[in-house]
Amino acid sequence: MSRGRKGRRPGDPEVTKRAVLAAAKANFAAVGFDRATIRAIAADAAVDPALVHHYFGSKQDLFAAAHDFPVNVDELIDSIFAGPAAELGERLARFYLTVLAVPGSPPLSLIRAATTHESAARMLREFIEDVLLDNAASLIDLPDARLRLALVGSHMIGVVFARNLVGIADMAEMDVERLVAAVAPTIQRYLTDPTALG
Amino acid sequence: MSRGRKGRRPGDPEVTKRAVLAAAKANFAAVGFDRATIRAIAADAAVDPALVHHYFGSKQDLFAAAHDFPVNVDELIDSIFAGPAAELGERLARFYLTVLAVPGSPPLSLIRAATTHESAARMLREFIEDVLLDNAASLIDLPDARLRLALVGSHMIGVVFARNLVGIADMAEMDVERLVAAVAPTIQRYLTDPTALG
Repeated sequence: MSRGRKGRRPGDPEVTKRAVLAAAKANFAAVGFDRATIRAIAADAAVDPALVHHYFGSKQDLFAAAHDFPVNVDELIDSIFAGPAAELGERLARFYLTVLAVPGSPPLSLIRAATTHESAARMLREFIEDVLLDNAASLIDLPDARLRLALVGSHMIGVVFARNLVGIADMAEMDVERLVAAVAPTIQRYLTDPTALG
Repeated sequence: MSRGRKGRRPGDPEVTKRAVLAAAKANFAAVGFDRATIRAIAADAAVDPALVHHYFGSKQDLFAAAHDFPVNVDELIDSIFAGPAAELGERLARFYLTVLAVPGSPPLSLIRAATTHESAARMLREFIEDVLLDNAASLIDLPDARLRLALVGSHMIGVVFARNLVGIADMAEMDVERLVAAVAPTIQRYLTDPTALG
């Protein structure tokens, strides 16, 4: 890993942060989300682990920062679930389609990488299983909460695939709010209707 | 294109078929589904276009054969829509998850290629738009038939993505019939419920 430390001034926070992010990205790619540790990432960046926590918070926050996620994952999940229950599906669909499913977005790059590189797939798999599904499932008071969320996520990723990666005209050329309106009832059903899974 | 014609015996149907399939695959990849022609493929394989039709049928049949699809697309769509209307979603979900979403299946390879190669994306996009959506939409007597099918397809591709490409444990380790039962009501709704799109 050539991080070009030659020009590094000790104590410059921006330089330190960049070194931590580079070390984090390399570590997550090499060993996945589960086995990566703040301690090892700090060691690779030659800083104290406490400083990594101070700058970036938890391991999942560091993962998000290292991959340029445009949002804080916990805050996002909380804000989506905190609004009116009847519009949960709409809020979730709108977030996915306006923040995640945007050409060139970092999550889209991660999805693309995961289809061809097993290391990227593992990293994404572990992050989805251990962060997204775990955190959101605690907010759903129905049986099969994780499966419901996985079905929602798979539908949304499939829409992103059709709209942004393959470019099926019927979806790609559609106004995003029209698409939000079309999928929202299905998302709502998966998350709130006890009979949705048959 | 080295198709190794050295050992070709004129008139050997199996050798001729292989030459046509190789020429078809190369042509579809090079110019997409729309612009590929039986005439050009026949010329590349040094056979008469009538023989290509005789062996493989229509352009869409040739596309399916060249990509090792395990089914005839028209017959498949007809058979799925011909059964009892109340179980349409279940039949469609079962087909997807037992034939398409199988590790190493040719359609799965095409999906994977489409995320990273624009030529593969175009080929898949044109095949989905001009064959799958066109043919199936004529069997759905509701407004937004193509969009409904595109939403069904995107959900199914997303499930394949989560289950087979990323391997989210909540879906990957699930019995396939349980997964069919979980998504069938959603598919059914998209294809038959006038209010499904909100």
